[in-house]
Amino acid sequence: MKITKDFLWKQDMSVNDFLERLGNIGFQSVELKNASDLIVKMKSSGAKIYLTFTSNMVTSGLRGFFAQLIKLNIPQVIVTTAGAIEEDIMKAFGEKFEIASFHSDDVELHERGENRVGNLIIRNESYMKFEDWINPVLKKLYHKKNRWSVSELLKEIGLELTPKEGNENSILYQAAKNNVPIFCPGITDGTLGFQLFMFQEKHPDFIIDVVQDFKNIIFVSNHDEKKALIALGGSISKHHALLSGLLNGGFSYALYMTTAHVTSGSMSGATTQEAKSWGKIKDDSDAVTVIGDVSINFPLAMCNALDVLKNRNLLNES
Amino acid sequence: MKITKDFLWKQDMSVNDFLERLGNIGFQSVELKNASDLIVKMKSSGAKIYLTFTSNMVTSGLRGFFAQLIKLNIPQVIVTTAGAIEEDIMKAFGEKFEIASFHSDDVELHERGENRVGNLIIRNESYMKFEDWINPVLKKLYHKKNRWSVSELLKEIGLELTPKEGNENSILYQAAKNNVPIFCPGITDGTLGFQLFMFQEKHPDFIIDVVQDFKNIIFVSNHDEKKALIALGGSISKHHALLSGLLNGGFSYALYMTTAHVTSGSMSGATTQEAKSWGKIKDDSDAVTVIGDVSINFPLAMCNALDVLKNRNLLNES
Amino acid sequence: MKITKDFLWKQDMSVNDFLERLGNIGFQSVELKNASDLIVKMKSSGAKIYLTFTSNMVTSGLRGFFAQLIKLNIPQVIVTTAGAIEEDIMKAFGEKFEIASFHSDDVELHERGENRVGNLIIRNESYMKFEDWINPVLKKLYHKKNRWSVSELLKEIGLELTPKEGNENSILYQAAKNNVPIFCPGITDGTLGFQLFMFQEKHPDFIIDVVQDFKNIIFVSNHDEKKALIALGGSISKHHALLSGLLNGGFSYALYMTTAHVTSGSMSGATTQEAKSWGKIKDDSDAVTVIGDVSINFPLAMCNALDVLKNRNLLNES
Amino acid sequence: MKITKDFLWKQDMSVNDFLERLGNIGFQSVELKNASDLIVKMKSSGAKIYLTFTSNMVTSGLRGFFAQLIKLNIPQVIVTTAGAIEEDIMKAFGEKFEIASFHSDDVELHERGENRVGNLIIRNESYMKFEDWINPVLKKLYHKKNRWSVSELLKEIGLELTPKEGNENSILYQAAKNNVPIFCPGITDGTLGFQLFMFQEKHPDFIIDVVQDFKNIIFVSNHDEKKALIALGGSISKHHALLSGLLNGGFSYALYMTTAHVTSGSMSGATTQEAKSWGKIKDDSDAVTVIGDVSINFPLAMCNALDVLKNRNLLNES
Repeated sequence: MKITKDFLWKQDMSVNDFLERLGNIGFQSVELKNASDLIVKMKSSGAKIYLTFTSNMVTSGLRGFFAQLIKLNIPQVIVTTAGAIEEDIMKAFGEKFEIASFHSDDVELHERGENRVGNLIIRNESYMKFEDWINPVLKKLYHKKNRWSVSELLKEIGLELTPKEGNENSILYQAAKNNVPIFCPGITDGTLGFQLFMFQEKHPDFIIDVVQDFKNIIFVSNHDEKKALIALGGSISKHHALLSGLLNGGFSYALYMTTAHVTSGSMSGATTQEAKSWGKIKDDSDAVTVIGDVSINFPLAMCNALDVLKNRNLLNES
Repeated sequence: MKITKDFLWKQDMSVNDFLERLGNIGFQSVELKNASDLIVKMKSSGAKIYLTFTSNMVTSGLRGFFAQLIKLNIPQVIVTTAGAIEEDIMKAFGEKFEIASFHSDDVELHERGENRVGNLIIRNESYMKFEDWINPVLKKLYHKKNRWSVSELLKEIGLELTPKEGNENSILYQAAKNNVPIFCPGITDGTLGFQLFMFQEKHPDFIIDVVQDFKNIIFVSNHDEKKALIALGGSISKHHALLSGLLNGGFSYALYMTTAHVTSGSMSGATTQEAKSWGKIKDDSDAVTVIGDVSINFPLAMCNALDVLKNRNLLNES
Repeated sequence: MKITKDFLWKQDMSVNDFLERLGNIGFQSVELKNASDLIVKMKSSGAKIYLTFTSNMVTSGLRGFFAQLIKLNIPQVIVTTAGAIEEDIMKAFGEKFEIASFHSDDVELHERGENRVGNLIIRNESYMKFEDWINPVLKKLYHKKNRWSVSELLKEIGLELTPKEGNENSILYQAAKNNVPIFCPGITDGTLGFQLFMFQEKHPDFIIDVVQDFKNIIFVSNHDEKKALIALGGSISKHHALLSGLLNGGFSYALYMTTAHVTSGSMSGATTQEAKSWGKIKDDSDAVTVIGDVSINFPLAMCNALDVLKNRNLLNES
Repeated sequence: MKITKDFLWKQDMSVNDFLERLGNIGFQSVELKNASDLIVKMKSSGAKIYLTFTSNMVTSGLRGFFAQLIKLNIPQVIVTTAGAIEEDIMKAFGEKFEIASFHSDDVELHERGENRVGNLIIRNESYMKFEDWINPVLKKLYHKKNRWSVSELLKEIGLELTPKEGNENSILYQAAKNNVPIFCPGITDGTLGFQLFMFQEKHPDFIIDVVQDFKNIIFVSNHDEKKALIALGGSISKHHALLSGLLNGGFSYALYMTTAHVTSGSMSGATTQEAKSWGKIKDDSDAVTVIGDVSINFPLAMCNALDVLKNRNLLNES
């Protein structure tokens, strides 16, 4: 029987010490500690880890952390959305995303060419730079072949980022370098979609083959392999990883972090519990759901897990 | 200046009368009344209405309502997700979705082949029937041509539903019959994706062209046309409609209904206010956000709007 | 087995017809229908009904509805907060509460003497009128006796509202007239608390006896009596009703309507399920929780229940 | 202009270093960093700090942290609820609160005499011990005098805890020892209320004077004094502190941490922004709202603030 213990401050605590104490508080605190322990278990067990996230987490400063995790061999599969791809590339150019306010004057922002995502701002210029850059890349790739699955395309784009920008913190770059496939089943849902369309207008035989990528995500693993899922936020990225896991025998471990609740029946709010009814998560799997802002909860649980893994010599940096 | 008025019950009120009174309460009540008024305004103005919804709303009984709205010429453009397509078709076969509990025993459900979505259940058999049905359809379509944009494909699938099932309440059927395009940028994110992959294995030149469909959604409207958006829930369906609207000069009217909140910076929780900073919604547009369960709020606002439109002879049934 | 049915609009539906259809949708819709059915069951069974609400619901237009329900003999016990008392009285004077916006300029509002509650406004003048009125009332009551339990005091205040204001829509007036006690365990938490303190400064032997009122709420019922709870929102009002029910053998029926979620362990988000572990709600009781805005959900469920009760001749108006 | 920076893990980070990085992420992360900075500012400015919390936070392991903060001279005023008082005393006896699951079998728990609060459990025995202990204390106090304001009573109860239990982690004990008044405007809303009623039955002239305590909380500060508020969760405790601050010229600094949202117009979800319209918070005050689980966010922001204050020699332990 686990019991609550009085949390006490100690001067200059480490994140490790802090999380240890958090594990005795209750409500979401203990779930967060369980989340951190589960990540350690995923990695220790040798499971193939799928990491999914939504584009707003790339808008935020978590983007560099995701890249670092790939470098540290934590996730072996990434599933995300078009916006995440675009913004990772913008940041690779050095584009700056402002931290503003949830209560900005949006009409004024629009006049200044500033686009708001919660309390963050992306400027029109960042989109323009992305568009200018992506076109020659598409042309180059088209000359190699005319039909691309999404994950293949994203790998090539990642490799394009390498020498010129030298950006260590790019998700696409680190994924390409470390052979971690990035799946993006909704690849056209962004300005990238617009660029692909413009390119196809000139080159009608240019094909983005999303069906081929379904095969790729299925064959990224198999029934016998132990699989683990870290799903940050909801959306198509969470669902797509779950679906591919389901078709491969289900996940042995699953961690969901989200602000959504079960009560509306949405995918974002669906719990690890519900996923068991589908076989998306094995009945006997370790599963944790932490409700709250991912921008706080994920770094906290993950940094602690990395410290533990490092101490146990389970962290093999690339 | 609008003021709160004491809500009073009157025997056997109509939905109309009820909503009129709701408009004087405050908090989300008044927003719901504003939502209903805005729908009337959208239709009266002759705007092209985009309706987006997530798959869980098709799991629920709203599916027949969406089909009816298409029949009533309310939306001219639909954007949704793969799950919505699949479940609409299952229901067209007469498959039953059980209303159960949010607190079911999920391991037991899994053993019975029952998959939970909030307090609803989809049986494995429903998926099997879908799979058995879709394959000959794909074969038939492939013999017409080998490269399909998503909305083209969905139209043909809708037409397939017509004579055999005769289901008036199918979204795909009504959309096909009434020339309302259905866009689904994440078409492979469901069992449909698996079926498409299996089909492509046998017919490698079979192509689902998502890039082509980006063109289609752009050309479904133009800058000069007045556009309106009804976004139910969040996800890729909401974002994709907003994106295509942005590229076409923005929406003049926008209604969001969601359970998500702005505080995490997610697309699901993003308000009509935030969308103005992007130009997704015109600065001077009428925009309403209603926070709460769409399964209650949407039928309430929409039924009232339909009554008003009917009374004003603005409802032209197909 | 209950299954989802396609919701369809029919011209000029009644609230009854609408709710019947809502009961086949799933997610919170079916819970709302269950809520309405449960209210009918509460009343049909002859249970003593406790109604609790927070002050923001009185700020909104639900105030007149609560008064009407008392008149219709629905609740036999009321538990609420100080703000609810004050605002009911202000409205009895004819004070107007503006419906504004969630995004007001609060500094500007402050300069104008306008106080915001979500999208509603209470003017300083309304508070001043309340203060001017309450003082002579306190003096009059003090001359009767110097020690008052809260519910006794509120009854006398309700009777004071009678002839002069003649306000049919006042909760305090209808409660006093119909012998429905109003409990308010946090009576000093409002401007009323300030007035009571000012009065006590002049009359040090003036006592508000909250302990005596604990006796009163315990003796408002007994173990053998069937009890039912309708808790709107959370806070001390919900908890106090539950506590008094627990001490009297628990509630046989319970309906919670709230926007809060279980995940933080708060009283506002605590479900009817959790209450069973305490014996606050009997293990075999009928219990429903509806998540969403009370300003929409409560009138919808309640109006339907009133129609049903009226049709069954179970509604005895006072 | 502040911009997002890529968050990166570094081995064995301190909480300080971690929070510094969190401040560059966006969404609630940056708000949490702002919250921590604001606490430092409150203390550095010499403001009188009001700390409010709900009872579930005492159920959790935050109870010892609150006691430690009192010892460290952080809050000078406490406002809380009856449950918090009771559970602090139970823990002072060494009663253990189990960490269980949000998905417990509540009927089974009830049979075992276990009461659930989210994922925590309080056993019936803990309540019984509380009841056995409080009665002789009430008798002893009654013999001193028959009329007690709440904060006076709580101070005496705190002093009773001192020698026998010697519990350093008790809120009541530390508050009594350090002359920090504890206000509890809803003192009867708990088993304590039941005990007070039983005692009054035998001693009818025993009075808990809540009106007197309104005076006490008003005179705990004055218009000229700089005041700061840390409100954890919502409820009567948050509102009462705000009310007393309003009557004293408003707070210069305010920090809200809550899981509730603005959209329902509730006190729990009301933001620091809204409070400005009332004058509860000064127009030019520093105000931060962090949305999320207090059991994670408060220790994180507060521990960092304590480290900073310690380093600046601004922490004067008692």
